Amino acid sequence: MAYLNVVKVADALSQMKEKFPTYHAVEHIALANAVGRILAAPLYAYENLPAFRRSMVDGYAVKASDTQGASEQSPILLRYLGEVDMGDQAGEALTTGTALYVPTGGEIPEGADAMIMIEHTERMGPDVAVFTTPRFGEHIVDIGEDVKADESVLSKGTCIKAHHMGLLASLGHHELAVIKKPRVAIFSTGDELVEVFETPTGGQVRDCNRPIIQSVLEACGCEVVLSEHLSDHYEKLHEAIKTAVAKADLVILSGGSSAGHKDMTQAVIDGFSEEEQHPNVFIHGLAIKPGKPTIVGAIDQKAIIGLPGHPAACFITLKALVEPFVRGWMGTVDAHIKTVPCVANFQLYAASGRDVYQLVKLRTSDETGTFIADIVYGKSGMVSALAQANAYVVVPMAHEGVLKGDALTAYLL
Amino acid sequence: MAYLNVVKVADALSQMKEKFPTYHAVEHIALANAVGRILAAPLYAYENLPAFRRSMVDGYAVKASDTQGASEQSPILLRYLGEVDMGDQAGEALTTGTALYVPTGGEIPEGADAMIMIEHTERMGPDVAVFTTPRFGEHIVDIGEDVKADESVLSKGTCIKAHHMGLLASLGHHELAVIKKPRVAIFSTGDELVEVFETPTGGQVRDCNRPIIQSVLEACGCEVVLSEHLSDHYEKLHEAIKTAVAKADLVILSGGSSAGHKDMTQAVIDGFSEEEQHPNVFIHGLAIKPGKPTIVGAIDQKAIIGLPGHPAACFITLKALVEPFVRGWMGTVDAHIKTVPCVANFQLYAASGRDVYQLVKLRTSDETGTFIADIVYGKSGMVSALAQANAYVVVPMAHEGVLKGDALTAYLL
Repeated sequence: MAYLNVVKVADALSQMKEKFPTYHAVEHIALANAVGRILAAPLYAYENLPAFRRSMVDGYAVKASDTQGASEQSPILLRYLGEVDMGDQAGEALTTGTALYVPTGGEIPEGADAMIMIEHTERMGPDVAVFTTPRFGEHIVDIGEDVKADESVLSKGTCIKAHHMGLLASLGHHELAVIKKPRVAIFSTGDELVEVFETPTGGQVRDCNRPIIQSVLEACGCEVVLSEHLSDHYEKLHEAIKTAVAKADLVILSGGSSAGHKDMTQAVIDGFSEEEQHPNVFIHGLAIKPGKPTIVGAIDQKAIIGLPGHPAACFITLKALVEPFVRGWMGTVDAHIKTVPCVANFQLYAASGRDVYQLVKLRTSDETGTFIADIVYGKSGMVSALAQANAYVVVPMAHEGVLKGDALTAYLL
Repeated sequence: MAYLNVVKVADALSQMKEKFPTYHAVEHIALANAVGRILAAPLYAYENLPAFRRSMVDGYAVKASDTQGASEQSPILLRYLGEVDMGDQAGEALTTGTALYVPTGGEIPEGADAMIMIEHTERMGPDVAVFTTPRFGEHIVDIGEDVKADESVLSKGTCIKAHHMGLLASLGHHELAVIKKPRVAIFSTGDELVEVFETPTGGQVRDCNRPIIQSVLEACGCEVVLSEHLSDHYEKLHEAIKTAVAKADLVILSGGSSAGHKDMTQAVIDGFSEEEQHPNVFIHGLAIKPGKPTIVGAIDQKAIIGLPGHPAACFITLKALVEPFVRGWMGTVDAHIKTVPCVANFQLYAASGRDVYQLVKLRTSDETGTFIADIVYGKSGMVSALAQANAYVVVPMAHEGVLKGDALTAYLL
C-alpha cells in the first residue's frame, strides 16, 4: 500500500465501521458510577411517574366545582378534613364541600380535582375559607404525566450525565446495563523518547503522546490496560502488539507511522498477516493536515491504529479519527453540544488534497455573543499551541481557504 | 430572616465569597490522573522546549549559504557527512560544503541553519545533490521556540484537560500540585423519600436528589464522603449536620428548605449558633425560578447549603449557585466554552423579582449553524424534562420576557 494513497477521514471511518464489529460487551454498574458511561440498552420506565396524583404546592385539595365564584370578596367555606403527611397515602376519597391539606409533593385524595395554594385560604374554626376559584386540575401533576409506564425514557447509547440522574433514580434504575469500557493498549515508538519523569539528553525528548492518547481515550469511555514505550525494533514491536491484541480491544501506537526507514508500524502490523496479498493495514495515510501519517490495520478483527509521532498531529488524529471511531464502535449517542459556529479572525490557506485542522482559541464578541476564533499558531510538533487552544476548525480540501470574517464550525476541546 | 427576603444569585455568590475562605488544600498527583483536576499553583517550564534545535522534516541539515541558487535545473553538490539517529546528539559542527541527514524530530548540528526535505535531494556517491535553496532557518524549530525556560505555561486554577497533557508531559511535570478534592456531605430530607432501590408505596417517591447532587459536585472536582437520607426530625438533622461539618468541607442538603412547618433546615442550621442575634443562615430565598427555597448558612466557616426538594429546582440551584460557588472557592479558571448564543423558539414570561431558569434543547439550524433553543416543558418537580434538555437559558427579572426569535445565552449541560 502506497503511503501517498491517502483517504478522507469520512472514508476511513466508514471502512473502519465495516471492518470492526460493534463493541457490545455489557456490564452492570451502580447508578452512582454511571456518569460518562454508555447505556447498553434502551431504558424503560417500569412504572408511572408520578405513581400518584401529586400536589405541586402547599395547600388544600378540593373539588373545583365546590369553589365556583370564590374570590377575595366572597370566600367559600369548605369543611377542613385534616392533612396528608408527606409520604402517606391520601386515604379516603374527598366528598363534596370538604378540603384536605396536602403539602407540596403529597398525594391528592380521590375525588379532589384541584389544589388551592395556602396563601389563598384561611382556617376558620372547623372550616377553610377559600378566596379563589382554581382551574380543574390546577397545581396537580397527574399519574404518569412526567413519565408513562413502559415508555422508553433514554435510548441505547446515551452517554449518562448529571442531568439524567434524576430520571434514572426516580424510576428506580439503581443498576444500569452499560457498555463495558473497551480495553486499550497504548504504545509509543521512537528511540528519541524518554519517560516523562526522566531528563532528556542530546536529541531526546519526553514521551508526551502516551498521556495525550490515554486522556482522550479515557474521555471516550475506554480503559487503558497497557501503556508502554517501545524502541524501533521489529521483533520487540511484533511481540508487544501480539500481547496487546490478546489483552486489549483496541491498540494505539504513536510514531513510526510515516514512510521513513525507521517507520516500522506498517510492516509490523502486516507481519501478522499470513498472506502477503492480504495485508492487515488497510489505511496508510489520512487526507488531513496535520495527521497524514496515520495507519489503520486489523489483527484478529481488532483495530490497530498508528498515529503520527508529532504531539499536535497525534492529538488531531485522535479527535478527527479515533474519537469518532470509538464513539461509533461503542454506539455512543450524545445530544450534547460539541460544535459551535464561529467567525474566523485569521486567514488560512487550504491544502491541496487534505483537510486542514487548525487549533483556535474562541472568545465571545461583546456585542452579539458570536464566537470569534483566533488562530493558535504553532509549528509542527509544538505542544504549547495545543495547550492554549479551546477548539479547532477544519478547512476542507475542496475549499479555497479561510478569509477573515468567514463563518466556520468550531469543534470544542 | 424572612423567607421572602430573596437575594439575587450574584449577591448570594458575593456574600458566600466573603464568608468562606478560599479552599486551598493541596495534594500531589501523578500526571496520568490529572484530567479534571485544578492546578494549585502556576506551572512553569524549567527548561526550553525544544531543548535542542529540532528538524521538522526528514532531510539534510545544511548551511543555507552553501545552497544559493540550487534548483531542479542546477543542483548543488554537498559532501554527505552521514546521519543523526533519533535521540542522538548531532555531534560535530557542520562545516561549509557538507550535509548531514537528520530525521524529523532529530537534532540539527551546530553550524547548520536550514533543513532541506529529502524529496528535494538525491544521494550521488559521496555527495548529496540539493535541488532547492532553503530559507535561513527553514524547517527548524529553534531552542525554546515552543516554550521558553522559566515561562509560566499554565495559570493557577487551570482545569486540566486532555489537550494540556502534551505540554505537561513534554516539560517533565510527571507530578502536579493540584487542589485537593473538597469533601462534600450530602443529605436529603423528607419523610416521603425511599431509597432508589426500594419500591415506593402510597405517597412515597424515590430519593433522586442525592444522585443529582453527587454527580454535579463530582463534575466540579469534589469528592462525596457522606450521602444519606434523613427523616424530618430536628435532633437527627442536628446530629447529622454536626458529623458532616466535622468530616466534610461542604454540606449540601436537599428538601426542608421552604417555609412549611416540616421545613426544618433553617432552624437546624441556626441551632448551631450560640447567639440568636447572629444566626448561621445568612441567605434564605434565592431570586430564581425554580429554586427560590434555597438556604445558605455557615457553621465553623463551612458552607451549609440547603437546596429545594423538587429535582428540577435542585438541579437548577446546583448549576446557578453551587457550581459557581465551588469553582470560585477552589479557584478554578477555565477557558473552555460553557455558554453559546442561541435564538429562542418559544415565548416565555419573565417573573416578577426572580430570574427564570428555563431548560431548553438546542439544535443547529441548517442554514446558518445558529443554535435554535426549543423549550423543554415540565411542570414543577418533573424529572423527564431535565433528562431531555441539553442546556438552559436565563430570563432576567428586569427583562420583559422572551419572544420567539429573541437572542439568548444558553448554558450548556
